[in-house]
Amino acid sequence: MTTLSPEILSTLEGQAIELPSWAFGNSGTRFRVFPTAGTPRDPFEKIADAAEVNRLTALAPTVALHIPWDLVDDYTALRRHAEDLGVKLGTVNSNTFQDEDYKFGALTHHDERIRRKAIDHHLECIDVMDATGSRDLKIWLAEGSNYPGQNDMRGRQDRLQDSLQQIYARLGDDQRLVLEYKFFEPSFYHTDVPDWGTSYAQVASLGDKAMVCLDTGHHAPGTNIEFIVMQLLRLGKLGSFDFNSRFYADDDLIVGAADPFQLFRILFEVVRGGGLNNPDVAFMLDQCHNIEDKIPGQIRSVLNVQEMTARALLVDREALAAAQQANDVLGANAVLMDAFYTDVRPALAEWRESRGLPSDPMAAFAASGYLPRIAAERVGGTQAGWGA
Amino acid sequence: MTTLSPEILSTLEGQAIELPSWAFGNSGTRFRVFPTAGTPRDPFEKIADAAEVNRLTALAPTVALHIPWDLVDDYTALRRHAEDLGVKLGTVNSNTFQDEDYKFGALTHHDERIRRKAIDHHLECIDVMDATGSRDLKIWLAEGSNYPGQNDMRGRQDRLQDSLQQIYARLGDDQRLVLEYKFFEPSFYHTDVPDWGTSYAQVASLGDKAMVCLDTGHHAPGTNIEFIVMQLLRLGKLGSFDFNSRFYADDDLIVGAADPFQLFRILFEVVRGGGLNNPDVAFMLDQCHNIEDKIPGQIRSVLNVQEMTARALLVDREALAAAQQANDVLGANAVLMDAFYTDVRPALAEWRESRGLPSDPMAAFAASGYLPRIAAERVGGTQAGWGA
Amino acid sequence: MTTLSPEILSTLEGQAIELPSWAFGNSGTRFRVFPTAGTPRDPFEKIADAAEVNRLTALAPTVALHIPWDLVDDYTALRRHAEDLGVKLGTVNSNTFQDEDYKFGALTHHDERIRRKAIDHHLECIDVMDATGSRDLKIWLAEGSNYPGQNDMRGRQDRLQDSLQQIYARLGDDQRLVLEYKFFEPSFYHTDVPDWGTSYAQVASLGDKAMVCLDTGHHAPGTNIEFIVMQLLRLGKLGSFDFNSRFYADDDLIVGAADPFQLFRILFEVVRGGGLNNPDVAFMLDQCHNIEDKIPGQIRSVLNVQEMTARALLVDREALAAAQQANDVLGANAVLMDAFYTDVRPALAEWRESRGLPSDPMAAFAASGYLPRIAAERVGGTQAGWGA
Amino acid sequence: MTTLSPEILSTLEGQAIELPSWAFGNSGTRFRVFPTAGTPRDPFEKIADAAEVNRLTALAPTVALHIPWDLVDDYTALRRHAEDLGVKLGTVNSNTFQDEDYKFGALTHHDERIRRKAIDHHLECIDVMDATGSRDLKIWLAEGSNYPGQNDMRGRQDRLQDSLQQIYARLGDDQRLVLEYKFFEPSFYHTDVPDWGTSYAQVASLGDKAMVCLDTGHHAPGTNIEFIVMQLLRLGKLGSFDFNSRFYADDDLIVGAADPFQLFRILFEVVRGGGLNNPDVAFMLDQCHNIEDKIPGQIRSVLNVQEMTARALLVDREALAAAQQANDVLGANAVLMDAFYTDVRPALAEWRESRGLPSDPMAAFAASGYLPRIAAERVGGTQAGWGA
Repeated sequence: MTTLSPEILSTLEGQAIELPSWAFGNSGTRFRVFPTAGTPRDPFEKIADAAEVNRLTALAPTVALHIPWDLVDDYTALRRHAEDLGVKLGTVNSNTFQDEDYKFGALTHHDERIRRKAIDHHLECIDVMDATGSRDLKIWLAEGSNYPGQNDMRGRQDRLQDSLQQIYARLGDDQRLVLEYKFFEPSFYHTDVPDWGTSYAQVASLGDKAMVCLDTGHHAPGTNIEFIVMQLLRLGKLGSFDFNSRFYADDDLIVGAADPFQLFRILFEVVRGGGLNNPDVAFMLDQCHNIEDKIPGQIRSVLNVQEMTARALLVDREALAAAQQANDVLGANAVLMDAFYTDVRPALAEWRESRGLPSDPMAAFAASGYLPRIAAERVGGTQAGWGA
Repeated sequence: MTTLSPEILSTLEGQAIELPSWAFGNSGTRFRVFPTAGTPRDPFEKIADAAEVNRLTALAPTVALHIPWDLVDDYTALRRHAEDLGVKLGTVNSNTFQDEDYKFGALTHHDERIRRKAIDHHLECIDVMDATGSRDLKIWLAEGSNYPGQNDMRGRQDRLQDSLQQIYARLGDDQRLVLEYKFFEPSFYHTDVPDWGTSYAQVASLGDKAMVCLDTGHHAPGTNIEFIVMQLLRLGKLGSFDFNSRFYADDDLIVGAADPFQLFRILFEVVRGGGLNNPDVAFMLDQCHNIEDKIPGQIRSVLNVQEMTARALLVDREALAAAQQANDVLGANAVLMDAFYTDVRPALAEWRESRGLPSDPMAAFAASGYLPRIAAERVGGTQAGWGA
Repeated sequence: MTTLSPEILSTLEGQAIELPSWAFGNSGTRFRVFPTAGTPRDPFEKIADAAEVNRLTALAPTVALHIPWDLVDDYTALRRHAEDLGVKLGTVNSNTFQDEDYKFGALTHHDERIRRKAIDHHLECIDVMDATGSRDLKIWLAEGSNYPGQNDMRGRQDRLQDSLQQIYARLGDDQRLVLEYKFFEPSFYHTDVPDWGTSYAQVASLGDKAMVCLDTGHHAPGTNIEFIVMQLLRLGKLGSFDFNSRFYADDDLIVGAADPFQLFRILFEVVRGGGLNNPDVAFMLDQCHNIEDKIPGQIRSVLNVQEMTARALLVDREALAAAQQANDVLGANAVLMDAFYTDVRPALAEWRESRGLPSDPMAAFAASGYLPRIAAERVGGTQAGWGA
Repeated sequence: MTTLSPEILSTLEGQAIELPSWAFGNSGTRFRVFPTAGTPRDPFEKIADAAEVNRLTALAPTVALHIPWDLVDDYTALRRHAEDLGVKLGTVNSNTFQDEDYKFGALTHHDERIRRKAIDHHLECIDVMDATGSRDLKIWLAEGSNYPGQNDMRGRQDRLQDSLQQIYARLGDDQRLVLEYKFFEPSFYHTDVPDWGTSYAQVASLGDKAMVCLDTGHHAPGTNIEFIVMQLLRLGKLGSFDFNSRFYADDDLIVGAADPFQLFRILFEVVRGGGLNNPDVAFMLDQCHNIEDKIPGQIRSVLNVQEMTARALLVDREALAAAQQANDVLGANAVLMDAFYTDVRPALAEWRESRGLPSDPMAAFAASGYLPRIAAERVGGTQAGWGA
């Protein structure tokens, strides 16, 4: 059995992957959202599910909130609820895509009333952050247009900068703003922050507390994502990851499911660039479990990240550097592939047990009876969801 | 002003583009469906809106139905309603993507009960066709899987063939089945009919009354769609078009909006292959008007097809053939581009007037007061929609 | 250490991957071909290099020829040379892309003189096959056009069918024709056989001895290639594979290098569909080693295929079927991933040794001194190449 | 006939599109370079051909050079030769992709000797600029890697910055450096400047005389290029365009040939962002005429840009702004489309005549006898080319 060195295990012990509260609610496509028994009906139940993932893996100590989906009257109560279950409240995500007013834009809108409203929504999100103790405000801009000519892209870009400055000004000393970019969807002609370059240019104008969020599903086909990881770490602007995977568009599948080798390469660049266990870089899932069970879907996801991080840490960097120096193309590639093809799962299982965790968290969850219990308990009320 | 020859005008006079009833209902993305004032609340109102498009353009004499969205108690009444408004009921579209049972498949499902149910649904669609006088049953298979291994793709393909045979057997002498293919969505790993080759292989096994439906938005990036048009016409299996346009995925934008030159090339291959005004080839829109007004969106769409058909008919095919024979690359291309760049709009406007139609149907609709009237009238009830 | 069952090892023992003679010649991009010391100067030296790959791996018992690159006066001598080195001559590949006459087409050309010449070239290839004992004639059609209008795509398709019929008629009883498809390049607007559907439609009209060749690098971005493998096996028309890998276009990188999980899924569908060790399905490499050493590049490639085949054979198909039947999305996917993540390399190394092969063929080749020897010996003459 | 206002004509009169000297040499794909009669054999003949394009169109007053392809002993002579023919020498392009030393990198190479050589090559290019009076040094970095692990992407990025700083330091007061980005090719795993974000980050660190060069063929599928145009103009960093068009990869087809509407949108953003007839933004062609005649290919290209610029200038920006303000999606789009569909060719032909130019430059060239003359004259010597 492959063994993992104490250094690697120690590094893995520090790994933390934030779970999105919305992953536990129903989701789907524009064609259909299939409901599931046991789906949470409020933020408290979402956090309970997230805590279950952490209980079995020790990998997911925080839960991201989405406003207004996770609005509650008493954030102190929510915070205590989380802490009682062993987790903390994490990143706060704003939402400017579901209000009727935002049909044609929010932070970029030419109508000052609507733009004001969108800015204010973000200020309220910071209020929530103050209450929850969250550090990061994550802004995913769903804004854009569907037809050429529909909008003045340049004017929108300038207004976006102005809106972000107003939001940035309200951040506390220990708070940050991370700006996500996305290639397309829900807009089909242009999106206002379509690529890392735009996000970088926007946040660079704001200041040190503004960073880029890289969602692994938000790129054009063929994009070399690990290059962007490298570049943003080099520029000191990689604020956070939204992990998921994709075959085509923003499929929001389980991280590592579509292209495990890509995930490996991304995590290797994280390691190489000093991004692992670096407080500046937050790791988060952003996925939809449309047809698979949600809690096991999240367990599988954090395990995928952990396993792939272990493989990335196994890369013999000295041997790699030597082969690179020698222009030994096949040799350098072989060093990488050797780590990728190493089966780290038995060693990780053994290590988990040594820490009092289940060696197989998926099996442990299945055996726990948690799923049938919530399916029986959570009847009545409205299941949480985020679509349409 | 460019003039259009009597032959071209006569050809254009025969052009008919079927409208989808669902284009008049609300639609959106997985993130949000924005409602619109005046949205139809039942199939009768949808047909009224479709008839308005035809009244102003004389281009859209039929309306496609979608079952179960357009289920009514009395199809004779619906048919008469349509005819009173100057249109006919057209293609019937089945739906196997919104019933809880179909979460993991329908015509391909390994559970015989569910597969039986899906087949029966199609037999009921043919019952509707009998009642409405529709010729075509269009099957878009939303089926597939999200994760490798989730399904046995081969078994599904075999069951699909069996299901289609059962449906095919029920067709009347003058009825047809058209099988649509789609690259991805709502499934993200595999779809059961992802490409024209699969649709072709499936329908070729059925018989002469089974044909392929080509939706212009259902291809991989970079696909040469006019090549497929050429090939399916050559093979005698192009049954129908679903027109729309796209920048990225299946964006369902207005036909011709994203890449007008591609639409031109497609229509030129239609003309070259004898597909225009050929009863074997049905022309239909399949679009979503998520943010633009729906009725003008449909008017704009049929006008786009008409204008581009006029340009395709303007191609000097003798000059083109001569340049091709001479390997005159630039010359041959220039013949095509000359037609594309010709402004046919003034001649078409004049021709419309000569036929008692408004020269500018968009302006005529805006002036008609139809939109404010339905917005005022259609209050209460549930607006039609198709998402989630 | 993972052990591989006797059944799996027995299956692996039967595996054969044909090497392309041209992989040992210089290749490059349109920008530059970098020469390498020791590059073969004639078909005899290419075969010697290929034999070296087989000597170290027992995986590559045949070598594909490319005509006219591998034209020799005496095929009996070439054949004996190969057999002396323990390999056989395999598939014959035609070339219709480097003669001045073929600038605008070959088997599809409107000029009957040129089309006749191209057909005759294929008949001569069959003469070579008769002399070498080769079974398969592989036709990759580099033909197409760069500008819309440049060619009549439909006429070319009809002429292609006619040309293929003439070639097919010349095939011996035990000979076959395999028709490759390619998305684009060297043509940039249309290619005459762009997709599997076209290749399938063309060969289905010819007869049982005509099959489709699937090159893993010849698809649009995002294409689910294993679906096509499944479909062609289902239709009985998968004649051969050209293995390589790609990040963007037809990059011709080492198979498994860009997306190992995709190679795994492809090989799993081969196994599932009965395509492994099935004489109907030929496995071949088609790669360019532009910057890496060529012989080790080929060794690495056949090892990649062998290792991935072992993983595909490890899939617990009963457990997979059970999970699929239960609609257990995560469970079914886990069965697949478990096999993929299993490290089969130690067991394969041990097995190699037990068969008298080097446990690490890459290291054995490096230690063999073959590369410096040919670099020293092969001076003077013209290095083989295939570009520009 | 559509008339073009005096303002529009005056703007068009100022338009200048630089021609690349290499467009007149032979080019092709990795499979084949087809030679053409009359191809220039030295820089003087290339400039003569370029001057012919300008003589017939008054659109192409400068010619870009490529070093070392256009190395001459006496740049004063070359300059005078150009001026005698009515054109000037323009941008100097460096080449770090064809020297054996640059196989694994140039400005990014880990070997200081090779990196020094590459930097020195650029310093020599600036010497040429001093001699020719050229303003811009254009750097296209063909560097990258083919296999994951082959290179340390981060180290290369840092070395690139250092190399650029050394080159930048040598620029004269009126000279600039423009850094091109490219998605892929000739490298297939990573390129060192793959996207506008990387180019922007690199040049922003250099200073005001460093800008981004946008080649319209160097993006991932689906990329909204006009958005990047807008953003770079907004950031003050759009230094130059390389115009061409593509269906798939970097096809280097005639600008406007593949997607004329995209060219229109790009030029509209140029107009909207103040980039037209702005000395900061250079317009250049970068195309390959692999199968079409080269001089007419260039004439067609500059005419395409001119015609599309006229359409972009026709956009009624007041009406557009009003529709945008009103969230009138269809109305705003219609304003754009109206300009796009307007046939500006007759008005441009008339205007050309009024300026003493041929109304149809393509026909004038064909009638001029220039092509047969150079085919007859330019025999012997080596035709210029740039491939492999």
